[in-house]
Amino acid sequence: MRAVDILRKKRDGGELTRDELAAFVRAAADGSWPEYQLSALLMAVCVRGMSPAETAHLTALMAHSGRVLDLSDVPGPKVDKHSTGGVGDKTSLVLAPLTAACGVVVPMMSGRGLGNTGGTLDKLEAIPGFRVGLSEAEFKAALRDVGVGMIGQTADVAPADKTLYALRDVTATVESIPLITASILSKKLAEGISGLVLDVKAGRGAFMKTRADARALADSLVRVGTANGLRCDALITAMDAPLGRAVGNAVEVIEAVETLKGNGPADLTELSVLLAARMVRLAGLADAAESERRVRAALASGAGVEVFRRIVGQQGGDPRVVDDYSRLPATPDVAFVTADRAGFVSGMDAEAVGVAAVYLGAGRAKAADDVDPAVGVVVRAKTGEAVRAGDAVFEVRHRGGSGLSAAVARLAAGYTLSDVRPAGAALVLEDVAC
Amino acid sequence: MRAVDILRKKRDGGELTRDELAAFVRAAADGSWPEYQLSALLMAVCVRGMSPAETAHLTALMAHSGRVLDLSDVPGPKVDKHSTGGVGDKTSLVLAPLTAACGVVVPMMSGRGLGNTGGTLDKLEAIPGFRVGLSEAEFKAALRDVGVGMIGQTADVAPADKTLYALRDVTATVESIPLITASILSKKLAEGISGLVLDVKAGRGAFMKTRADARALADSLVRVGTANGLRCDALITAMDAPLGRAVGNAVEVIEAVETLKGNGPADLTELSVLLAARMVRLAGLADAAESERRVRAALASGAGVEVFRRIVGQQGGDPRVVDDYSRLPATPDVAFVTADRAGFVSGMDAEAVGVAAVYLGAGRAKAADDVDPAVGVVVRAKTGEAVRAGDAVFEVRHRGGSGLSAAVARLAAGYTLSDVRPAGAALVLEDVAC
Repeated sequence: MRAVDILRKKRDGGELTRDELAAFVRAAADGSWPEYQLSALLMAVCVRGMSPAETAHLTALMAHSGRVLDLSDVPGPKVDKHSTGGVGDKTSLVLAPLTAACGVVVPMMSGRGLGNTGGTLDKLEAIPGFRVGLSEAEFKAALRDVGVGMIGQTADVAPADKTLYALRDVTATVESIPLITASILSKKLAEGISGLVLDVKAGRGAFMKTRADARALADSLVRVGTANGLRCDALITAMDAPLGRAVGNAVEVIEAVETLKGNGPADLTELSVLLAARMVRLAGLADAAESERRVRAALASGAGVEVFRRIVGQQGGDPRVVDDYSRLPATPDVAFVTADRAGFVSGMDAEAVGVAAVYLGAGRAKAADDVDPAVGVVVRAKTGEAVRAGDAVFEVRHRGGSGLSAAVARLAAGYTLSDVRPAGAALVLEDVAC
Repeated sequence: MRAVDILRKKRDGGELTRDELAAFVRAAADGSWPEYQLSALLMAVCVRGMSPAETAHLTALMAHSGRVLDLSDVPGPKVDKHSTGGVGDKTSLVLAPLTAACGVVVPMMSGRGLGNTGGTLDKLEAIPGFRVGLSEAEFKAALRDVGVGMIGQTADVAPADKTLYALRDVTATVESIPLITASILSKKLAEGISGLVLDVKAGRGAFMKTRADARALADSLVRVGTANGLRCDALITAMDAPLGRAVGNAVEVIEAVETLKGNGPADLTELSVLLAARMVRLAGLADAAESERRVRAALASGAGVEVFRRIVGQQGGDPRVVDDYSRLPATPDVAFVTADRAGFVSGMDAEAVGVAAVYLGAGRAKAADDVDPAVGVVVRAKTGEAVRAGDAVFEVRHRGGSGLSAAVARLAAGYTLSDVRPAGAALVLEDVAC
């Protein structure tokens, strides 16, 4: 099967067979096609699209281009959650312990943050000693003993995706729903899960700016996940403003723990509970109403925060951070962005807050950058809250002024005030069930 | 200007500006974009197309990516012909001397054959001593002294085209009318000509299989050539059967010389005269009717064959070949494909004949192959001619049996017989004037 024939077929809008897609995926994994052929096919797919059947095959082939975990020797239903990435989104840290407390096994492989969206691994590594690089035996032990393992994607997971992901970034072929779908789900299928809850973000802080685009992606993810044997649910949720108040690494860990203790911001708490309830339901443990009741009970009883403590301990972290936040990395340097008049915060640009956090060192402008766990932004006045002139809207935790002026400029332009309290906006925009 | 932004714009169907196209062409010439970005843009262009303005800019930029000849110190109107490639098409060898005999200067840069279509350079090099690698000074001397120079494209002509042409071949981006247009015309613009006659072939032996595709290419070539200051004319001509009888290198030289002596096959003679008359007209030397009259006079008087003799001598070849064909390379090995019954040849597949010639060694399966000047196929019975059982339809000149069985099999399946004489088919299908 010649690369050029496969390219020609997709160029002309044809539907590729499983064998043709297999040749492409194999080539991406083993380098048997030159990059100029891979990128030409990516562009043809980007413009011509892919049928649901093509996308499902591509996803399965990419998952099986590398190691796929076999968790059959770990008892219990395995369910994970995937978010398309938002600013201040620390729901994984909240819902993994909550669902495990309800009997779900959560084998969570996450990525690092890039651009204005943070990554779960970076947040976890803010906890002194926390290891995201578990061996397979350690990962399975964590799943058996605690019900949660939170690790990074090793090099042998979906290697075809690694090649294609890097090429897409430099060939303007990122914005393709079939390619996004295959990239996300191939890595999730490699986790050995049976259920997956998808949190597809829509809004100015999200990759999908419009609700229509987010819906198209959610539909594709649910359809292709289901075709590959996963039980799938998706929520489309708003990502116009940051989720919760904390944007950074240590600050987000603190906020996640506070949420597990029942003291979290309403939006973060609600979304974590809703997503966790979906996971419990997809695990087959209860119907929707009962699942939500159990998750809220795990939150109220403190069972969730206890599981969080055990996750930290199991993965080599210092569990005392749960009760003593001073054990987390911190910086003495704090600045504020203040309101110049009284009013209500009527809008906040999640992307601006995310970019400000990157300027400060909390995130990455490019993949090779290091992150500083201590720095970040705390939203002191969320949308709908009142401020007086001089009140802080943002608290900026910086490291010796590094990136501070750029961050402050971005933040100062990143919110609006109004004289009347704005109407509340919905957090969950749509529910896409399989 | 970032490659990825240019890629995104074309991916989404946008019209690229001259500056954006300049970045692309510069990158193709100097390697400043990786090949995976060049190929992704080629694919986006292939699927999304290009406007006439984009194609005209691309063509000019590719022409100026390398050396453009300045022939202002060579007196006389400079006009060339380009054919999109056919089987047995040796018209260049006939019309260059005929037009030069009428006062046209013909600075002809040609390519080598690839696949089932032959190349003018290969044919010329069948003449002992003939040099297609003239220096610029030698080329200009040939144009001044003889009126014709027939050379290969040097590395410094349209280097952007060389990179893109090679990439297109391996990324299924050959079949794009804007890219074909720019590739053809960029090299012709670099010749320093003021007029160009285009022979766009249509049929099973041509790159463009349908008349509609050929017309689209002819329209694009004439439009873009005109936009770049060339006087252009195009004919769409049939390429279902080979042109003339000879397919190979030495055999085609002999047929071209015979045609110049007035003994050529009717189709080759007619097409050469028609194209030459267009060249004389585009040179501004006479109107259409008078141009044709002058070309026919140059043929009848022997002036054309005299110029051919001078071309050969000027470029280091042995001019005695014109009168003594035994001075051309030959092979003693001849086989025949014979008719198994009496009838009329009712159809002949030019592609089959071209491929058979490649099997024998007359052409190239890939660019690095050498050609054997002596081998080839002679059509003994052209479409419309009668044969008896056992008569030769094809004469196969081979070298010790190399490729013979494959060639014979292809030829035997490459023609049809009928009981009644078929109606004659038109050679010139359409006339696309500027």
